[in-house]
Amino acid sequence: MSSSAVNDDTLFLGIDGGGTKCRSCLVTASGDVIGEGLAGPANPNHGGLNKAIPSITDAAEQALVAAGYTRKDFNRVVVCAALAGVNIPSTFNAMKEWQHPFADWYVTTDLHGACLGAHGGHDGAVIVCGTGSCGFVNVKGRSELFGGHGFHLGDKGSGAWLGLEAVKAVLEAYDGLAPATVLTEAVKSEFGVSGLDIVERLNKASSSEFASLAPSIFAAADSGDAVAISIVQDGASYIDALARKLLAMNPPRFSMIGGISAPLKKWLSVEVAEKVEPPLEQPELGAIHYAKECYSAKTAEMIA
Amino acid sequence: MSSSAVNDDTLFLGIDGGGTKCRSCLVTASGDVIGEGLAGPANPNHGGLNKAIPSITDAAEQALVAAGYTRKDFNRVVVCAALAGVNIPSTFNAMKEWQHPFADWYVTTDLHGACLGAHGGHDGAVIVCGTGSCGFVNVKGRSELFGGHGFHLGDKGSGAWLGLEAVKAVLEAYDGLAPATVLTEAVKSEFGVSGLDIVERLNKASSSEFASLAPSIFAAADSGDAVAISIVQDGASYIDALARKLLAMNPPRFSMIGGISAPLKKWLSVEVAEKVEPPLEQPELGAIHYAKECYSAKTAEMIA
Repeated sequence: MSSSAVNDDTLFLGIDGGGTKCRSCLVTASGDVIGEGLAGPANPNHGGLNKAIPSITDAAEQALVAAGYTRKDFNRVVVCAALAGVNIPSTFNAMKEWQHPFADWYVTTDLHGACLGAHGGHDGAVIVCGTGSCGFVNVKGRSELFGGHGFHLGDKGSGAWLGLEAVKAVLEAYDGLAPATVLTEAVKSEFGVSGLDIVERLNKASSSEFASLAPSIFAAADSGDAVAISIVQDGASYIDALARKLLAMNPPRFSMIGGISAPLKKWLSVEVAEKVEPPLEQPELGAIHYAKECYSAKTAEMIA
Repeated sequence: MSSSAVNDDTLFLGIDGGGTKCRSCLVTASGDVIGEGLAGPANPNHGGLNKAIPSITDAAEQALVAAGYTRKDFNRVVVCAALAGVNIPSTFNAMKEWQHPFADWYVTTDLHGACLGAHGGHDGAVIVCGTGSCGFVNVKGRSELFGGHGFHLGDKGSGAWLGLEAVKAVLEAYDGLAPATVLTEAVKSEFGVSGLDIVERLNKASSSEFASLAPSIFAAADSGDAVAISIVQDGASYIDALARKLLAMNPPRFSMIGGISAPLKKWLSVEVAEKVEPPLEQPELGAIHYAKECYSAKTAEMIA
């Protein structure tokens, strides 16, 4: 789809797309950041391509406009979108085959983008633990993804998982089938409901709503609430196992990102916790590292 | 809404409405069963009243037609609908306030109907464990409901819960984060998928779909699979606690109904398992017991 060669005029755009927002970053061939954008949700596995693609083009246009370009310049930009949801094969293929308006178009997982960003474009491993949870390792051209199975079937240890387990525990306590817990007050405070009204209020609640309970769950665990401690320990033991799986592949660096990572760290084993290093760059810059890598390989092949 | 007095012409119709179907039974004042019906889903909490009410009137009409009556005779029938979902207060009120076409109209929970049926209209306790799970006890005019919080927030030990936990365990095993299990083969056999395709296939699956895995989970547990045993034991421990909660209220009889009850029994404690007695009548007959009781009390009050 591209006919451009790698030259100083080539622009690279990185997209980091998730279930709530989509960030973009535009850089020159020499690596200067010249524009950024922020648009709506871009997880093509939730809401479909019809929702993800406008977010992507919106974020892309914002970054171009910030740099003094317009939508007409889409065809001179090499884009990599690092997206949530494309770990599902059919979703990946649908996004990859999109008839894009750009000079070139690459798709990878949000985790791959986050991992490349966290380690400045180099090998490493990340755990993303926010509303959802998953792990990714990228070493010597080999990458592996663990978890990321979504709110209903997995995402153990994530904010949404912690929130759901807390709500279940509160309902069991209400029935007198499990110990009383201060989480009952936390649910009441967060959602304004108790008893059976909890079912009505949260029956169809989103993962983000459940995740909003996470800070209260950590607070309850810190205050010594046995139910909260048990839930946090259960989630942390999964994240710990995930980290060990990643570290077994000897990544040169390991980072944890996402809103739950900081409060979760003290619940991890010392061996895992002491290996955590801060992320170096944002995921959208990680997507740019990938776009440059793929595009260089492609143009080198075209020249050869 | 009724102006009829209790007399030999009064007909009583019991409805047992759940998430997949709705059964009806028509009896005379003297108790002879003269008609039955079977219609679609009637859980007003799933799909709303617009889906539940046509199922109820359809099942009612079928029972009337079977007895030689028509829809025009709705106004001589005292109806009690024992419905799933009406444990949610707003749902109960919406159903209760429905502008019904019957001589009189009572609403109660599917559990209350099942409990009255299981014990021939007398006091007792039941656990319903099929796609969902819950417990109900009805002793000396006092009734209490435990569980029944639905697939997303509770229903522990149910078929749907067992299936969901099995799928989660299979995905964790796929990631190498949990032990290998024969449930992987069970999921492949039931749904035709493995690995990440499981996420795509079951991401939005219904509780009934997850429940369809339950027989394989019990089979896996019986064959000694440690993961299946752990899941079944976890579910059974909840059902056991639920039973003890009910038995603490000294019901004269205790029954377990629903598709999971039979295979679950051997996983319960001996003290609970030995108290389980077979149900005497179907839930729709339980609803008729309740209709007669309410209607007698009301007409006695009108006469007094």
